[in-house]
Amino acid sequence: MKKHNFSAGPCVLPQEVMKKASEAIINFNGLDLSLIEISHRSKDVVEVMETARSLALELLGLEGKGYKALFLQGGASLEFLMAAYNLLEKKAAYLNTGTWSSKAIKEAKMLGEIVEVASSKDANFNYIPKGYSIPEDADYFHCTSNNTIFGTQIKDFPKTNIPMVCDMSSDIFSRQLDFSNFDLIYAGAQKNMGPAGTTLVVVKEDILGKVSRPIPSMLDYRTHIDKDSMFNTPPVFAIYVSMLTLQWLKDLGGIPAIEKINEQKASLVYTEVDRNPLFKGFAAVEDRSSMNATFNLTDESHKETFDALWKEAGINGLNGHRSVGGYRASMYNALSVESAQVLVDVMQELERKAG
Amino acid sequence: MKKHNFSAGPCVLPQEVMKKASEAIINFNGLDLSLIEISHRSKDVVEVMETARSLALELLGLEGKGYKALFLQGGASLEFLMAAYNLLEKKAAYLNTGTWSSKAIKEAKMLGEIVEVASSKDANFNYIPKGYSIPEDADYFHCTSNNTIFGTQIKDFPKTNIPMVCDMSSDIFSRQLDFSNFDLIYAGAQKNMGPAGTTLVVVKEDILGKVSRPIPSMLDYRTHIDKDSMFNTPPVFAIYVSMLTLQWLKDLGGIPAIEKINEQKASLVYTEVDRNPLFKGFAAVEDRSSMNATFNLTDESHKETFDALWKEAGINGLNGHRSVGGYRASMYNALSVESAQVLVDVMQELERKAG
Repeated sequence: MKKHNFSAGPCVLPQEVMKKASEAIINFNGLDLSLIEISHRSKDVVEVMETARSLALELLGLEGKGYKALFLQGGASLEFLMAAYNLLEKKAAYLNTGTWSSKAIKEAKMLGEIVEVASSKDANFNYIPKGYSIPEDADYFHCTSNNTIFGTQIKDFPKTNIPMVCDMSSDIFSRQLDFSNFDLIYAGAQKNMGPAGTTLVVVKEDILGKVSRPIPSMLDYRTHIDKDSMFNTPPVFAIYVSMLTLQWLKDLGGIPAIEKINEQKASLVYTEVDRNPLFKGFAAVEDRSSMNATFNLTDESHKETFDALWKEAGINGLNGHRSVGGYRASMYNALSVESAQVLVDVMQELERKAG
Repeated sequence: MKKHNFSAGPCVLPQEVMKKASEAIINFNGLDLSLIEISHRSKDVVEVMETARSLALELLGLEGKGYKALFLQGGASLEFLMAAYNLLEKKAAYLNTGTWSSKAIKEAKMLGEIVEVASSKDANFNYIPKGYSIPEDADYFHCTSNNTIFGTQIKDFPKTNIPMVCDMSSDIFSRQLDFSNFDLIYAGAQKNMGPAGTTLVVVKEDILGKVSRPIPSMLDYRTHIDKDSMFNTPPVFAIYVSMLTLQWLKDLGGIPAIEKINEQKASLVYTEVDRNPLFKGFAAVEDRSSMNATFNLTDESHKETFDALWKEAGINGLNGHRSVGGYRASMYNALSVESAQVLVDVMQELERKAG
């Protein structure tokens, strides 16, 4: 049965990527060996790592601009700590837009003073705060570009003279931004890039080496830069699948091409959420995420019918996060416009049935 | 061409595991979805995690003895730091048997005083020190059970009243030990357990919570215990393959059964190293690893011929580590006795040719 995978992450990846990944587990690059049984120091695996690193910089438009791309482990959760370990000398500024921002703040607080420049906690994080000011004497400003749980997304990033750090786990490679405005970007692979198990870190080298604390080897970005992201055995499979997905994106036309498709999917779903009297959107309209559309039923008595309808249609992963309830349609890069249309059809079918 | 994979890690895994892993990338558990595109909170993935955790404890004979098994990220390299973060209050005792022990010592030194109880650095780590004493006022004793690079292995572990921490990355699940003598065991998956990308941690709960320092969430074993090893998105694929490999080992008869096979392979190779005048072993005979046999040519002029011979025979990954030179035959659990015999045949063929 054809599935329509709206899972919030790990999530849908391109079918051709799955096929190549499956084949590589049996016979990688025609070596008569599996991708997962050969040395990470072998020519073929080193080439995977180098290709993935260079595709990441190329797609973000950051080649030749002083940035390094690394594929690490531990997810954004470990980056919350690493970012602070590498950059926080005295004080840092954080924008709190949800669960992940809050967790980033918690870890950073162990290493210095954290100024929360603004928070949307007062409204269960259903909007992005605006008009806040960033202290110029902070070591850096940290924000979360897209909030998977609440379905909000920063559209306009603040201007600041201090380094800007961004957790882009759930919308990297999905929309055009001037990525050179950021000094450190990190993202767990398991949304727009690959399977769970690796974290992309893109760091401008000149922001490093400025804190006085000693940094443990594994938490020091410079360790990983010096060793070309192979300080220790990297998560080969997750990096290989990320490389294939980045190659797929490049072949498609890169970020400008996928952005159009993502806007098309988001427009289909949000138009229906706004039109259909049985649904209401959760996030503030101007802050709606193009990746995760959060919405609720206006009348909970339709829940059973709706749940049956979408499951029958082959839709997967539509349940909302417990913090918000209702539904969440995650429309990452590899989700087809067709899948978004299937969801809209099901929402309309509910209206007919309930009518 | 049939390959004989002696790679030091990532390394050979059972063929049936590869086949199942490859299939799960296309269709996992008959869900019409890939293993790598579904939520880690889904019933099927939670079951993978729980099965892997429980198989690990069962195979080690640690069920019901106060231990928890965790599948984390970051490899042994991150455990060097985590072990110290969780256990080191003032002073810890380390046995230095090679590169990995030395790295563990380096990271721990950032958090307290380290007493190096003994070291075999004086002889390029070609033996395991014995007869050392462990200070009873240390917070714990740390050792490396098997030294991949040098081909040495601890046969008799010291008796001590303080907690014993062991990096078993390269020989866990390969031989019978009383694992309940250890309080914390960690191991990167990429030798006897699975692909690179996850780390097995087996920890006795009652040793935790005794240090006064605050521990960052991701580095705190209690965080991961509290969340059943799903504090953040786990590396699903690597854990799935580890689960399959542990299941394969259980079906084979567990550690007692694989130990016999491992001894057979090691005996084949070491007997030939000792018999054949063209080779000499690197490690002290009594400390020889059953996982990694390190040996050199007695006359380097045979190098070209030998390298051509083993490559023609389909052997992969036989080059020694740069710290030792020569050759290293890594004979992890999934390597067949047949492959060990092929290596012996090639060594004998060299003797005939050189004769």
